[in-house]
Amino acid sequence: MAVAGLAPTSRGTNEAADAGTPRRGARDRRRDRRAAAKLSGPAYVTRAIPPYEILDEERLLRIEAAADRILAEVGIEFRGDDEALRLFRQAGAGGEGITCTFEPGMLREILRTAPAEFTQHARNPARSVKIGGPHMAFAPAYGSPFVMDLDRGRRYGTLEDFENFVKLAYMAPWLHHSGGTVCEPTDIPVNKRHLDMVFSHLKYSDKAFLGSITAPERAEDNIEMARIVFGAERVERDCVIMGNVNVNSPLVWDGTMTGAIRAYAAANQGSVIVPFILGGAMGPVTTAGAIAQALAETMVGCALTQLVRPGAPVIFGNFLSSMALRSGSPTFGTPEPAVGSLVVGQLARRLNLPLRCAGSFTTSKLPDAQAMQESAMSMLSAVQSGANFLLHSAGFLDGLLSMSYEKFVLDVDQCGALHSYLAGVAVDDNALALDAFAEVGPGNHFFGCAHTMANYETCFWDSELADNDPFETWEDAGGKDAATRANARWKAMLADYQAPPLDVAVEAELTDFIARRKAAMEDAWY
Amino acid sequence: MAVAGLAPTSRGTNEAADAGTPRRGARDRRRDRRAAAKLSGPAYVTRAIPPYEILDEERLLRIEAAADRILAEVGIEFRGDDEALRLFRQAGAGGEGITCTFEPGMLREILRTAPAEFTQHARNPARSVKIGGPHMAFAPAYGSPFVMDLDRGRRYGTLEDFENFVKLAYMAPWLHHSGGTVCEPTDIPVNKRHLDMVFSHLKYSDKAFLGSITAPERAEDNIEMARIVFGAERVERDCVIMGNVNVNSPLVWDGTMTGAIRAYAAANQGSVIVPFILGGAMGPVTTAGAIAQALAETMVGCALTQLVRPGAPVIFGNFLSSMALRSGSPTFGTPEPAVGSLVVGQLARRLNLPLRCAGSFTTSKLPDAQAMQESAMSMLSAVQSGANFLLHSAGFLDGLLSMSYEKFVLDVDQCGALHSYLAGVAVDDNALALDAFAEVGPGNHFFGCAHTMANYETCFWDSELADNDPFETWEDAGGKDAATRANARWKAMLADYQAPPLDVAVEAELTDFIARRKAAMEDAWY
Repeated sequence: MAVAGLAPTSRGTNEAADAGTPRRGARDRRRDRRAAAKLSGPAYVTRAIPPYEILDEERLLRIEAAADRILAEVGIEFRGDDEALRLFRQAGAGGEGITCTFEPGMLREILRTAPAEFTQHARNPARSVKIGGPHMAFAPAYGSPFVMDLDRGRRYGTLEDFENFVKLAYMAPWLHHSGGTVCEPTDIPVNKRHLDMVFSHLKYSDKAFLGSITAPERAEDNIEMARIVFGAERVERDCVIMGNVNVNSPLVWDGTMTGAIRAYAAANQGSVIVPFILGGAMGPVTTAGAIAQALAETMVGCALTQLVRPGAPVIFGNFLSSMALRSGSPTFGTPEPAVGSLVVGQLARRLNLPLRCAGSFTTSKLPDAQAMQESAMSMLSAVQSGANFLLHSAGFLDGLLSMSYEKFVLDVDQCGALHSYLAGVAVDDNALALDAFAEVGPGNHFFGCAHTMANYETCFWDSELADNDPFETWEDAGGKDAATRANARWKAMLADYQAPPLDVAVEAELTDFIARRKAAMEDAWY
Repeated sequence: MAVAGLAPTSRGTNEAADAGTPRRGARDRRRDRRAAAKLSGPAYVTRAIPPYEILDEERLLRIEAAADRILAEVGIEFRGDDEALRLFRQAGAGGEGITCTFEPGMLREILRTAPAEFTQHARNPARSVKIGGPHMAFAPAYGSPFVMDLDRGRRYGTLEDFENFVKLAYMAPWLHHSGGTVCEPTDIPVNKRHLDMVFSHLKYSDKAFLGSITAPERAEDNIEMARIVFGAERVERDCVIMGNVNVNSPLVWDGTMTGAIRAYAAANQGSVIVPFILGGAMGPVTTAGAIAQALAETMVGCALTQLVRPGAPVIFGNFLSSMALRSGSPTFGTPEPAVGSLVVGQLARRLNLPLRCAGSFTTSKLPDAQAMQESAMSMLSAVQSGANFLLHSAGFLDGLLSMSYEKFVLDVDQCGALHSYLAGVAVDDNALALDAFAEVGPGNHFFGCAHTMANYETCFWDSELADNDPFETWEDAGGKDAATRANARWKAMLADYQAPPLDVAVEAELTDFIARRKAAMEDAWY
């Protein structure tokens, strides 16, 4: 693709942020946009730099051929979902019993109906996110049983924590999406959590969100809640909820997951199809093999959506991992998955599907140097791979076992920096500044020159968490480290939180629905 | 270029590390190489991934044209160096007085004699570094007046600190070069420091190093010391020392610097030519303009080496910066310089010159989350830009004002991770692991399979500083953060330090030379 067409001041923000105030000057608009971004940020980010292409055609073809051989010779098992089996058999899959094999090309043909780009609509239309092509949406981390902060340490997550992270993501200017299971609300029965979680996303935020995938009927409940908010007709037409679904690697699709996929696809809602292959356990320890396996497994999951409903939105997901040699523990934010993610990006583009890949990964147990070193390597690989939906962008700590309040705001700041990174290097008359050189000349300074005055407010990313002061100023202010500043930051954000408006009748209908569904079930803790 | 030809186990190490033991199996060699790497690491690293190309041809041409216009219409001043002026006039430069202007193409023509790749020889031949092409050498940070550690905080650097950092860089398996002014030894007179600094590099390390550039006669002293160690004939033939020289931006070359360039080039030694443009002060605030200016300034400095001695080794350097809007303070490790570095890499490749760019930059005052987040973004841009000589790879803290002991070892660990990153994704039969899928099949695990057993020891980067243990294990071990672990690590390294052998007669000659030079000068503190 062409690159860096945006002025540096645009920071890759989307058209929505550019709308309005048509009669005012560009500079006023820039300033307004900057102020608005501080409050709420852009609805999504559009990259002005190309993805990082690291493998040549020959090697990409070899990985695709390996995936094709896995699919044709070993095949995929479908456990506990006769309907999924039936759909694939009807589409021409071979194999016997619960195993399907696929001739090369078959799945790619099925995937031709999947959209290369789609919009997930938010209940606030200004917050709808484009997913695919050059567009990217950053979402919080997903699925940790624990939460952490510097005051109270590690503990099981509760619904209060869940609501807090939804509120923080709503306020975070550089997150575009509310995510899904931002932490497990372990104080709520497992079979009822999905109701409270989606209610939190709808009440405490107006950004797009994910629904349950832990059982097909829970997915149905969440889709029904979406119908209450958006109307049944709208849900039939537009994507307003998605499920993030995991393969049971290696090479098994479990009925719980394929059931959730079928529920979302049948309702014309989105699915994110993600294998989680821990090298040496659920797949080979070599990156190319893990990628080939993931490609095979993910194509099958994506194809299922199209068999259920051609044209249903689906995201090609990936989650590469590595392990520590000495302990066998999983590792995150390490170099092999980072560079491997770039290859996954190339493969997803060849499938013409939106990509979910990587995130702010780390195994560190604190929001410390290790945490942000690993997260930066991982998150840069996500944006450089061309990922379109970046789950785990904020809060990930402790190998995904803990959601950290401090890490959350540190990661959000990093996401902001990536908005400037993705805007690339503008090359136009203003950026080249030839008039400034003529004005200033050799040996003089640019402090007050016209070009500096016109550009200094918008030329550089302005972090709210990084300390750039001189040492003495920093020391006089208490000599705080980044984690300590982050601790103050999330508390201030929660103290400032104000809920977005939600129609009273809609809220009543939601709470009534939830009450009825809860009353219809015994509590279950599995 | 083609990519990822190396097996993941090779970690992009160089041929030197692959040599020897020709009759033994690949697995034994890998294991030996791994053990050797723990001790001393590869002499340099050779990338198996392509650089990240972010701008298209049209935009690169516009930046080059802007640099050409700056050179032709504004020109460069040479202050206090009539010989440099004479050389450029003789080569065809226009302009009057101390200003030279250059017609488009003139400097590029002069630069055709500069080598695209060269070797800086170390006194231990196994430590010589290839600089240029796909080869990269990581060196410590350079030039901070202060040092820091967690025990004693920030203080002025001393010769003891200097020696400590030379020892740590010698022991660091993932640094290939000893650097230059690893910190200012402020307890030694300014006019005599260069003697003690180069003596430290020669005595406490056997890796390649940089000499003084603060005065032409100091450069001459250091070259003379190199002659004592390598022999005058050898120095005439091979690059054994380099000077890292700064432009006095905007558009001024100071006689101290051009004098140092001329001294190194005349002796057939290397120069690293680096503008440091703080946007809004020494150059425009827009990245493309700063890059155009830097390109102009750097081409002039590089060309001077070729006018003095065609074929002299020279490195195209760059140091992009940004600033904090609210304070005007310089910032480091921010997104604009990171993405700008990728453009600088493209321009250097078009000049066919080796590149020095970026490093482990940060403004943080502690080895904390901010420090490593900024450093990771910056250092990844260095390796992705195709940089060949990576000064500031380890220790950089506090906006280059402080060299940190803990940050040093954290950065070294990051450099190790980048060795695995640069090895890319191997795509061969072993990596694709098709036999493993046939052996394991759907739903089973890969723990004991033949492919895992053959590959698990060498497949993933093995950090010595990252904590990948489960939370409880980490907590039982004291719940230490990365900085605390780094503090223990550098102390253990210094406790284990053993000097490489140095010929007694050579050492005596060096100390005698230093004593004579010191006796010939009054102490000066400027």
